[in-house]
Amino acid sequence: MVSDDDIHDDLELMARTLRLAERGRGLVSPNPLVGSVVARDGRVIGEGYHASHGERHAEVAALDACQGQAAGATLYCNLEPCATSYGADDVHPNGKLTLPCTHRIIQEGISRVVLATCDPNPHVAGDGVRQLRAAGIDVAIGPLADNALPLNIAYFTNEVLRRPFVHLKLAQTIDGRIATSTHHSRWITDQRARDHVHRLRAEHDAVLVGSGTARLDDPQLTDRRAGRDRRPQPWRVVLDTEARLAHHLRLVSDAHVARTIVCASESSAAVDRATALERRGATVLWVPTAASGGAGVDLPAVLEALWRHGVRSVLVEGGQRVFTSFVRVGVFDQLSAFIAPILLGGGVDAIGDLSLTRLADATRLEQFSVAAIGDQAMVTGFRSLNRVQAALRPPKLETEDALAART
Amino acid sequence: MVSDDDIHDDLELMARTLRLAERGRGLVSPNPLVGSVVARDGRVIGEGYHASHGERHAEVAALDACQGQAAGATLYCNLEPCATSYGADDVHPNGKLTLPCTHRIIQEGISRVVLATCDPNPHVAGDGVRQLRAAGIDVAIGPLADNALPLNIAYFTNEVLRRPFVHLKLAQTIDGRIATSTHHSRWITDQRARDHVHRLRAEHDAVLVGSGTARLDDPQLTDRRAGRDRRPQPWRVVLDTEARLAHHLRLVSDAHVARTIVCASESSAAVDRATALERRGATVLWVPTAASGGAGVDLPAVLEALWRHGVRSVLVEGGQRVFTSFVRVGVFDQLSAFIAPILLGGGVDAIGDLSLTRLADATRLEQFSVAAIGDQAMVTGFRSLNRVQAALRPPKLETEDALAART
Repeated sequence: MVSDDDIHDDLELMARTLRLAERGRGLVSPNPLVGSVVARDGRVIGEGYHASHGERHAEVAALDACQGQAAGATLYCNLEPCATSYGADDVHPNGKLTLPCTHRIIQEGISRVVLATCDPNPHVAGDGVRQLRAAGIDVAIGPLADNALPLNIAYFTNEVLRRPFVHLKLAQTIDGRIATSTHHSRWITDQRARDHVHRLRAEHDAVLVGSGTARLDDPQLTDRRAGRDRRPQPWRVVLDTEARLAHHLRLVSDAHVARTIVCASESSAAVDRATALERRGATVLWVPTAASGGAGVDLPAVLEALWRHGVRSVLVEGGQRVFTSFVRVGVFDQLSAFIAPILLGGGVDAIGDLSLTRLADATRLEQFSVAAIGDQAMVTGFRSLNRVQAALRPPKLETEDALAART
Repeated sequence: MVSDDDIHDDLELMARTLRLAERGRGLVSPNPLVGSVVARDGRVIGEGYHASHGERHAEVAALDACQGQAAGATLYCNLEPCATSYGADDVHPNGKLTLPCTHRIIQEGISRVVLATCDPNPHVAGDGVRQLRAAGIDVAIGPLADNALPLNIAYFTNEVLRRPFVHLKLAQTIDGRIATSTHHSRWITDQRARDHVHRLRAEHDAVLVGSGTARLDDPQLTDRRAGRDRRPQPWRVVLDTEARLAHHLRLVSDAHVARTIVCASESSAAVDRATALERRGATVLWVPTAASGGAGVDLPAVLEALWRHGVRSVLVEGGQRVFTSFVRVGVFDQLSAFIAPILLGGGVDAIGDLSLTRLADATRLEQFSVAAIGDQAMVTGFRSLNRVQAALRPPKLETEDALAART
C-alpha cells in the first residue's frame, strides 16, 4: 500500500533531485552535479545521479532504475538533458551510451519533464528542451532554479566564461586584516571556520596560494576528509614566479607532492629550480609575467594553464598580494570572508591598495549573504552571478512556460 | 469565560514583561526599561511599565492595575524591584511614592515573584530579593535573562563601570575601509542600513563624531523619527580639541543646535572660539588633552564630562581617528559594523594602526553575532559583556534557585 505521504509535488521531487545530485560532489568534475527522479502521480518509480566522470548520466540512471516501466511518467532533472548526437558513430561523451539523454527520455515514453535550469553548454543550450517538446513532451523549467544554481556554480561559470571558477577565501579581522605586521595569522579564525574551509577545499578542484604564503605559513592545503571516499585531494597551486619554493616546505615534501602545481614565469631564469621541483614530484606550469608591470605571473594566463590542466574551480587562499591581484585584474567569481571578532588595527590588509578614489569604481559583489560559522561571521558574494544566471534561462520560445512553472 | 489560550507559563509571561518594558524606549534614561505583569494561575490580572523618568515604577503600575486584587498572585518583572528605604522621609526617588517597590509587593500579598535578572545598582543589588524572601515570598530568578540583558545593556554597563555605555558604529567595506583616499564615504551602505542607524541613534542618549567627520561629512546626526513621540533628539557630541568647528556646519547651525556638545581641550587657547559656539546655542565641555601624547582630548575625561551632563549612552560614528582612539584606550562596550558588499582596496581604514604585533594582544569581542540588514552584513560584539553579566547574577544564597528557574 502507498500512503499519502509518498505522494509528492514538483517542488518536493525537485528537492529530492537536488539531494541526489549532491552525492556526486567531488567526483564528477568537470561534469556538473546532476540528479534525476522519475515519478508517476507524485510517486517515485526510479531515481539516480551522475556518480562520477565517465559514468551514466543521471537521467539514464533514473530510467534504468524504472526497468522499462516509465511510459507516461514525469522525469525530474536539475539540468537540461544533453541533446547532441555525436556524428555517424553516435558515441556519447561518457563512452558507454550511444545516444543523447533526450533520445532515451523520448524512447521510454516519458510524458512530462521538469527541469530546474537549462544548460548553458553550447552543445545543449536549449536544444534539449526543443527536442523533448518536438516529441510532444510537456517541459516545465524553473522549480528550485535558485537552489540548482549554487550546486553547479563552477560548471555554469566554466560554460559562460570559459575559464575556471575562482573563489577567493579570506580569513580576516573585522577591520580587514589577515595577519599582524610580523605576519602572525595563526589563528585569526577558530576551528569551526577552519573545518568549513576544508569543506570548501573539497568543493574545488584546486587550492591556490602565493609563494609568500607558502613560505610564511608552510600550509598543506589539503582536504582532511579526502581519501575516505574516492575523492582526490584538490590540486595545490603556488604562484611562484621564480620557482624558488624551498624544498623543505610541505607543499613539495609531503605525501601529496604529486598534487602540487607551481606556476612560474616563462621569463625567469628558473629552469634549473623548476626541474628540481619537478624531480620532487611537483608539476611546473610556465606562464607569462603580468602585463601590468610589477612582479608576479599573469593571472588570466594562470587560469588558462590550469584550465588546460583540467582544473575547473580554484579556491584562492592568499596572501594579500594574490587577493589584491585577482581583484585588480577582475578574474574572480565568488568571495567568502570569514570575519573573526577581532580588532587588530594595522598589520597586513586582506586587500591591498587598488588606487581607487571613487566608490563607484570599487568592486561591488552581487547576491551578498551572511552566516554565522562558529565565532565568525561568514560573508559571501559573487562577481558575475547575474550574468551566469541569465545564461541559464530557457530559450526565448519557452519563457512563458518557465514563468508558469515558477508561479 | 477564559480559554486555555489565556493561560501562560513563566516564559510567556516574562516575554510579555519584556515587550512592556520596551515601550519606555528612549523615554526613561537614565533609568532602566522595566515592565511588569501580575498573573494568577497563568492569567494576566494586571500589567504596566516604567513609562518615563519620574513616573511610577513598572511593578507599581502593574499592581495599580490590579485594583487591590493581587493577593496570592505572581508578579513578573524583568529587573529586581527596588528595595531602598530613603531615610526618615521615605521619599522614593521618583518623588511620588514613599516606599520602595518591595514594600508595595509585600503589602499587596503577592506570593511569588519571577525576575529575569538582579539589579547591579548598589542601592538594590540583591537586597530586593532578600527583602521579598524574608517576607515569605517565593522568588525565582533567571527566565529570559539573556533577553533582558540587551534591553538594558546601557543601564547595566553604567552601574557596573560607572561611565556611559559606548557603542562604536562602523559603516565599512568588506576590506575594512570607511572611505576612499579622497574621503568619499557616501554611500558605502544602503538605505536599509542607514535606517537601522537611525534606530540605533534613538537607543542612545548621544551620538559622537570627531571634528574631521563633522567637517568632511557635515552630518546632522539626528534621529529622523524623534519628535513624533515625546522622545528628544540624541545629544550630538563633537570631539573638537581646538573648538574650530565652522559655524556653517549643520551641527552648529540647524534647528537642533541646542542638542550639540563640543568637547574642547582645556589646554587649547580656544576660549574665544568656544564662546562663539556657545553663543550659537551649543554646549562646550572642557576636557584635558589625551595623556598618551598626540593630539585629541582624553577619552575617559570626555566620558566623565558627558556622564556629569546626564549622558548614559553614546553611539560613536567616526571617523577613523576617533574609532582608533576608543579601541586603543579600551573605553567602549559594543561594536557594530555594517559591512557593505564592496572591495575598495585602499582608502581610509576603519581602525588605524594600533602597533600590535601579536594576535593575542588584539581586542577580541565577546558574544559576536551577525545579521543581514538590507544588502549589508551587520556584525556586533561586546567588550565587557561577560563582566557586566556576572554582576546581574543573584546573590550567592539564591544561586540554586536561579539555576532551578533556568532549567
